[in-house]
Amino acid sequence: MTIQRALGTCYYPEHWPREQWANDARRMAELGLKWVRIGEFAWSRIEPEHGYFQWEWLDEAIEILGENGLKVVLGTPTATPPRWMIDRHPDIYAVDEMGNTRKFGSRRHYCFSHLGYRAECERIVDILAQRYGGNPHIAAWQTDNEYGCHDTVISYSEAALHGFWRWCEERYGTIENLNQAWGNVFWSMEYSSFEQIELPNLTVTEANPAHCMAFRRFSSDQVTSFNRLQVDAIKQFSNIPIAHNYMGRITEFDHFEVGNDLEIASWDSYPLGFLEDRIDETEQFKHEHSRQGHPDFQAFHHDIYRAVGKGRWWVMEQQPGPVNWAPYNPAPLPGMVRLWTWEAFAHGAENVMYFRWRQAPFAQEQMHSGLLRPDSETAPAFDEALQVANELKALSTDENVDAKVALVFDYQSAWATDIQPQGKDCHYFDLAFDYYRAARKLGLSLDILPPDCADLSAYQLVLVPGVMTLSSELKQAIEQFAGQVIAGPRTNSKTDEFAIPSPLPPNFPGLDATIEYVESMRPTAQVALNTRGNFIKWQEKIASSAATLAQTLDGQAAVTKSNNITYVAGWPDQEALMYILAEQCAELDIPTELMPASVRRRDTKTHRFYFNYGNQAQNIAGVTIEPTGVYWSEQIST
Amino acid sequence: MTIQRALGTCYYPEHWPREQWANDARRMAELGLKWVRIGEFAWSRIEPEHGYFQWEWLDEAIEILGENGLKVVLGTPTATPPRWMIDRHPDIYAVDEMGNTRKFGSRRHYCFSHLGYRAECERIVDILAQRYGGNPHIAAWQTDNEYGCHDTVISYSEAALHGFWRWCEERYGTIENLNQAWGNVFWSMEYSSFEQIELPNLTVTEANPAHCMAFRRFSSDQVTSFNRLQVDAIKQFSNIPIAHNYMGRITEFDHFEVGNDLEIASWDSYPLGFLEDRIDETEQFKHEHSRQGHPDFQAFHHDIYRAVGKGRWWVMEQQPGPVNWAPYNPAPLPGMVRLWTWEAFAHGAENVMYFRWRQAPFAQEQMHSGLLRPDSETAPAFDEALQVANELKALSTDENVDAKVALVFDYQSAWATDIQPQGKDCHYFDLAFDYYRAARKLGLSLDILPPDCADLSAYQLVLVPGVMTLSSELKQAIEQFAGQVIAGPRTNSKTDEFAIPSPLPPNFPGLDATIEYVESMRPTAQVALNTRGNFIKWQEKIASSAATLAQTLDGQAAVTKSNNITYVAGWPDQEALMYILAEQCAELDIPTELMPASVRRRDTKTHRFYFNYGNQAQNIAGVTIEPTGVYWSEQIST
Amino acid sequence: MTIQRALGTCYYPEHWPREQWANDARRMAELGLKWVRIGEFAWSRIEPEHGYFQWEWLDEAIEILGENGLKVVLGTPTATPPRWMIDRHPDIYAVDEMGNTRKFGSRRHYCFSHLGYRAECERIVDILAQRYGGNPHIAAWQTDNEYGCHDTVISYSEAALHGFWRWCEERYGTIENLNQAWGNVFWSMEYSSFEQIELPNLTVTEANPAHCMAFRRFSSDQVTSFNRLQVDAIKQFSNIPIAHNYMGRITEFDHFEVGNDLEIASWDSYPLGFLEDRIDETEQFKHEHSRQGHPDFQAFHHDIYRAVGKGRWWVMEQQPGPVNWAPYNPAPLPGMVRLWTWEAFAHGAENVMYFRWRQAPFAQEQMHSGLLRPDSETAPAFDEALQVANELKALSTDENVDAKVALVFDYQSAWATDIQPQGKDCHYFDLAFDYYRAARKLGLSLDILPPDCADLSAYQLVLVPGVMTLSSELKQAIEQFAGQVIAGPRTNSKTDEFAIPSPLPPNFPGLDATIEYVESMRPTAQVALNTRGNFIKWQEKIASSAATLAQTLDGQAAVTKSNNITYVAGWPDQEALMYILAEQCAELDIPTELMPASVRRRDTKTHRFYFNYGNQAQNIAGVTIEPTGVYWSEQIST
Repeated sequence: MTIQRALGTCYYPEHWPREQWANDARRMAELGLKWVRIGEFAWSRIEPEHGYFQWEWLDEAIEILGENGLKVVLGTPTATPPRWMIDRHPDIYAVDEMGNTRKFGSRRHYCFSHLGYRAECERIVDILAQRYGGNPHIAAWQTDNEYGCHDTVISYSEAALHGFWRWCEERYGTIENLNQAWGNVFWSMEYSSFEQIELPNLTVTEANPAHCMAFRRFSSDQVTSFNRLQVDAIKQFSNIPIAHNYMGRITEFDHFEVGNDLEIASWDSYPLGFLEDRIDETEQFKHEHSRQGHPDFQAFHHDIYRAVGKGRWWVMEQQPGPVNWAPYNPAPLPGMVRLWTWEAFAHGAENVMYFRWRQAPFAQEQMHSGLLRPDSETAPAFDEALQVANELKALSTDENVDAKVALVFDYQSAWATDIQPQGKDCHYFDLAFDYYRAARKLGLSLDILPPDCADLSAYQLVLVPGVMTLSSELKQAIEQFAGQVIAGPRTNSKTDEFAIPSPLPPNFPGLDATIEYVESMRPTAQVALNTRGNFIKWQEKIASSAATLAQTLDGQAAVTKSNNITYVAGWPDQEALMYILAEQCAELDIPTELMPASVRRRDTKTHRFYFNYGNQAQNIAGVTIEPTGVYWSEQIST
Repeated sequence: MTIQRALGTCYYPEHWPREQWANDARRMAELGLKWVRIGEFAWSRIEPEHGYFQWEWLDEAIEILGENGLKVVLGTPTATPPRWMIDRHPDIYAVDEMGNTRKFGSRRHYCFSHLGYRAECERIVDILAQRYGGNPHIAAWQTDNEYGCHDTVISYSEAALHGFWRWCEERYGTIENLNQAWGNVFWSMEYSSFEQIELPNLTVTEANPAHCMAFRRFSSDQVTSFNRLQVDAIKQFSNIPIAHNYMGRITEFDHFEVGNDLEIASWDSYPLGFLEDRIDETEQFKHEHSRQGHPDFQAFHHDIYRAVGKGRWWVMEQQPGPVNWAPYNPAPLPGMVRLWTWEAFAHGAENVMYFRWRQAPFAQEQMHSGLLRPDSETAPAFDEALQVANELKALSTDENVDAKVALVFDYQSAWATDIQPQGKDCHYFDLAFDYYRAARKLGLSLDILPPDCADLSAYQLVLVPGVMTLSSELKQAIEQFAGQVIAGPRTNSKTDEFAIPSPLPPNFPGLDATIEYVESMRPTAQVALNTRGNFIKWQEKIASSAATLAQTLDGQAAVTKSNNITYVAGWPDQEALMYILAEQCAELDIPTELMPASVRRRDTKTHRFYFNYGNQAQNIAGVTIEPTGVYWSEQIST
Repeated sequence: MTIQRALGTCYYPEHWPREQWANDARRMAELGLKWVRIGEFAWSRIEPEHGYFQWEWLDEAIEILGENGLKVVLGTPTATPPRWMIDRHPDIYAVDEMGNTRKFGSRRHYCFSHLGYRAECERIVDILAQRYGGNPHIAAWQTDNEYGCHDTVISYSEAALHGFWRWCEERYGTIENLNQAWGNVFWSMEYSSFEQIELPNLTVTEANPAHCMAFRRFSSDQVTSFNRLQVDAIKQFSNIPIAHNYMGRITEFDHFEVGNDLEIASWDSYPLGFLEDRIDETEQFKHEHSRQGHPDFQAFHHDIYRAVGKGRWWVMEQQPGPVNWAPYNPAPLPGMVRLWTWEAFAHGAENVMYFRWRQAPFAQEQMHSGLLRPDSETAPAFDEALQVANELKALSTDENVDAKVALVFDYQSAWATDIQPQGKDCHYFDLAFDYYRAARKLGLSLDILPPDCADLSAYQLVLVPGVMTLSSELKQAIEQFAGQVIAGPRTNSKTDEFAIPSPLPPNFPGLDATIEYVESMRPTAQVALNTRGNFIKWQEKIASSAATLAQTLDGQAAVTKSNNITYVAGWPDQEALMYILAEQCAELDIPTELMPASVRRRDTKTHRFYFNYGNQAQNIAGVTIEPTGVYWSEQIST
């Protein structure tokens, strides 16, 4: 599939005097932007009172943008219900875990389960789609904005409670089934009707993990069905692609499930914003990358959303300079905006859209930079975007490389690990990311696979760390797979109802092994391996007739292998993981190369790209790459 | 009193297919277990609807266990009111300090003050006792489960408020007395009726400490009377011993008061579970003991519960492997389960019961190990229990040693220090435990005494650190005591109504001394003594005509002594405390011996036991004790 | 203006037997005290039931004190509404940010916006003023007590909500104006009536900063108008001075605004109480000053309240020994109470009042020391007060020095920085304090100026760091100013409605400069300057035609100057700040001298005072000053 690369931006005509619009549009076009996203927070301007619409400004904005050759992504405005909506639906709000109702005054102030609000959303999306579905300048839709941002997936509202009752009834049929599935005999938690079930917050000690897991699934499903309502409404009047802009490091809903109803996945990439408190790295590492971001974090999301979008994906919002919402908000090093943009293209992005065109001088995001300053002068990112626009002329299309290595990423496992971390520093995202970045440090280009992937035949090596329950599809795919699988820790350790399976884990086809018990360890306790590196955080006592590839210094089996399954019975540090992966790749003749420091590479079908996220120039591939440097060459097929 | 030692386990027949019960019972007996505890969470299976009972399964379970020679401890199921109870008593719940009602979905979801629930408990215990009071297999009762676990003693519910009004009326008679006793003239806090009093949470700044202390006393009394209701109900139909299983490091209610209504005290010993966040030790210490537990923490509880049980005590739940509820959950070193078991016996335990027989594969505790794995294979603890069972054949009975040294432990002082720590790291438990472990490091076997102890004549040395108010009984006992007393800091520093007494503390008979003022100190500030060690956290300015045994480097009296009272005017670190205790013991001809590293010893009437909690082999008593090692010899009377 | 220096104390006759009062008064007089504050928490004794008054005890107490030559400050008792007030106004309480109502049981349990309580306060103050306005012993009034203590300025109650609606209506006139001013088009936050506005707590993500700023202004105004009600009531019957005792490190309301209605400002100085968690210093620094307090913190407050009191100010409560409310409560080094007292006098205090006369043995503050112990023996502070009383005989009057350097301090900027710190360690108070203490380390005596200061002509150098919005008065004063101004970072960076101004900041007359963007930095990231020191926390990208006085090592302008404006484009550490200030002072011929270690000095019109807050003796001015030492000499005019 050929990818057509382009740049764009996010624009809010309603924030600026109308006489400025034409000049803005002209400057966008001159910069080389092709796309512009508008409308996603403009409900109060589109419908200032219920049932009273103001279309004229939006018509004109679209027309002006279109006239300047820009393709418009029109956002549905449902992330910001206007104040009059509260009078119509006073109980619209989400309720947090402590029982506090989250009020009007910012955005995302709705509960996904609120039926009244769902009807309002259907109504406004229907009207929008009807009006603009045939507009020649509208080239894509965006549903809502950043589902799940600001902890908004999980709500303990009355609406959620009622929705959960019906969801449970649908899943379990009878309350006896539910009692059985959850093991409610434990601590006399048995129910005699669905309406006796409460949401699993504010319990005296932890609620039943099966109860929690059901609630997390329900909460994710509510996002999916909320999104589907909008998609269905749009599709009545429009057949252009529909996207959603996912937010980084959010795992509270299943992005694959939502993505199944969309044509395009996109995400909002804020490399510096994410660094401080969404990534588990040392202080030293964060210090050294505070103006560049993490060298693997964006790439990981690019690959996730390429999977979520079934190949089609964008960066809908690209950080252009300092933001306003991180604990500390430094400016990127000069060159990083270009680097981030090219990295997205190297991973197969169709569009990279800078957020935002012009820094707003008012309200919540006034300290969030843009391509322009509030006074319309160019901000530093402007020139970097211009450079990319010029570079794109020679590299406007490409295709994704055929990756040899894939990693299964599973949102349900993130929920399961949240519910029962067993060690307080154990998070599924970190485990999957640890595998991913170890592979990247070896120079590998990976694909991400969803947990219900039914065919692995395109790959030579598939990584399945921490996937709590293997789906029947994936189980079968593994059985039929001729390549190598690396699994564990915790892989397939729970049933679909959050119980310990019988027989005991890991239950992999072709691997005779039993996890006798598991243990989590304090951060000071590392278990050294006799090969390289250590287990950290987590260790499993495995009994197996399989070959032992590594053992702990006290003689326990640490990595075992039989047939094409390698099981890692602990949480390996980077050194251990890179050793395990490098050995396996060597066996499979997949070439690896240790990347210097914070340099990373990514292959496309035709090119090999290098990105230097570090502070020092580095030599690789016969060239010197300066800090913030991007280097590409024609791809030598390997 | 001769102690008959035995092993047991905790079993939940309701969790397993009925056809498994006989095999389970047989295997328990073969392992050498004598006791089995059942029933304490089974209310929803005993009474699935209000007034509708299912006895048949429980009858059968008891019969099967009994047939296999096992003695049954039957638990009252009141820690887990079934869901239908909520419909009958929607306001049953405890309310936390922030005003949040704690909901159904786990356990202990009741407020001790709820009169309706008290009646339900009386009813079910009455019915249970009536049915099984004469059953020959039932050999003991357990009331409820782990009072106070999950912060459930202190409730700010309406039921508690109303109960507190009546409690205050009973204690003070008139509101004028209460105003006077609490000093309510301060800040115009005077009441004109008991019904004007609110519970002391959510005040703008701290509430009156006398108000808080009254509420803490009330809260503790509610646990005592709740337990007494059950005891009284049982005793109508049964005269076998009644126990409660206290939880470690819980001080929110007076365990001695509850114990006064019981024949046996027991506690739930989770050495690894407690280590991380319930014990004040350094990171390095926790690192070194993460698979063994604290070398003094279990012993301290053993001695407390021997006092609470007036000589008769058990470990009702013994950790057998990794648990599920600590911040990190490592596995014990091989040998530790045996060590913990023998340590309990050395301290006089009658029974040590492993929790649980088989790891449950479902619900909240599925990651809590047992003697068996979920698949019924043996877990590591099984073989250690078997070893103890075999060892017990030669050491089945013993008697407690006549300790020469005793430590007074007082729950009220824990409340008082909670209410007014004065320094944020000052906790009464830590102070008492500091004295205890210093004595243990000198090889001493101690007794714990309750704060209303009226006779000290059995001892040569009594330690009374931090007991905020000396009871009249203890005051008189000290006056009549021929041995030595070591007191302070903070001892006798408050009246019974949480005021500074007149004359000023410490007011010890035979000690002419005045605490002029006290100060708490930041962790970096230590005050060096001219003997050994330092004062940490806390220092008192004492004026005294007594002899100065130690002074601070700037010349303040630090330890003073006159007649048989030694007063320590600060919080001594371990070095200082060991010096003070060793000097005093030398004077009294009580032999001490510095224990190497993490080795501890405990004497019984006939034997001397050594336990190595450390990572290194240690030489003592002419033998080498390996890590996790237990060594015992015939006791040489000292 | 000649200052008459005196000592005093705070006394609570209602806490002590009546027969003790005369002796207390006599001892106060003998000690050399001239003033005594009473009454501020005695409402329940003055009016035990609504409308029923007991004057006799208060009459007598005043009479006894007066007979002993003591001047009485009479406090209005409104900080402690009695329990019967709650029955009359059940919704009197403040509500915190999480929606919790703060209950009765301590003090300050009222919302400033509650109209019913305001009427009650007017009533009681009216009655008090009428009764005692002409009493010859009453020499000053105190309104309420420590406005804002215990986080009581900001309340999210219904009363506050309704008050805020009216406040908004008054400020903005129409809802359209408000929407425009706040930029509510952003995220569809537009309102159609004032009654749609909610208080800005519990929003899903941050509320609009303009909304928050309006609410902070409203909250501050409520304190001002609450205080004015009392002032107006008093002035009907009394023309003696009225004071309020502000609490240290509280910035939630505008102390200048409240001060405009008072004759005297006073504050409550607890140097050790403040040190641990209200001052941003290193652990090492706190360790070294744990028994002395911060060497600049009290001075800073002295200078603030001299400004708030328009020259007339007191210490209404002076810490005399350990207190009860800090995380750790050590005793001051011997000599510190004297040092603190003299330091206050050196900064122009009229009175220093020790809190409290006698340590109360009951209720919340029983661990707070006084001049006397609970048993009426003298506590250590007594003798230090006596020493000062004797020293005062020779130095009973003085005048404030004519400071050459002034610092503008602005409460609104504290609110703005709270609302939008941009870097999580950025606090306005710390920035202003950093400037202040750098100047003090150079031996300077400063004045503090309010943000609406209209005349700077008395000074040679004015410091304006972080004042978010320059008032029109200050702008004009700067334009007319012949001296030097040092501004930045963040100075004048927002409009009055919390927006980025156009043109971009800093917009200083005479300085051609534009802040292109700003960035906050993690604590590990420092930006070295090519002169001395570093920027920490914050850096601005400035484009300017002005001279560059310093630049960062990577060549960015860091300090620029043109005409008489120096702009500092970052947050300088102490080394950088001292260099900037010293250079500027040298240019202006203002003598500076680097103070050794924790020694500080302060000039009066006639004397130069030195204070040694450190642990080591220091040589300066030809003398050796011991730790805790105070040295003064006749002032050599400089």
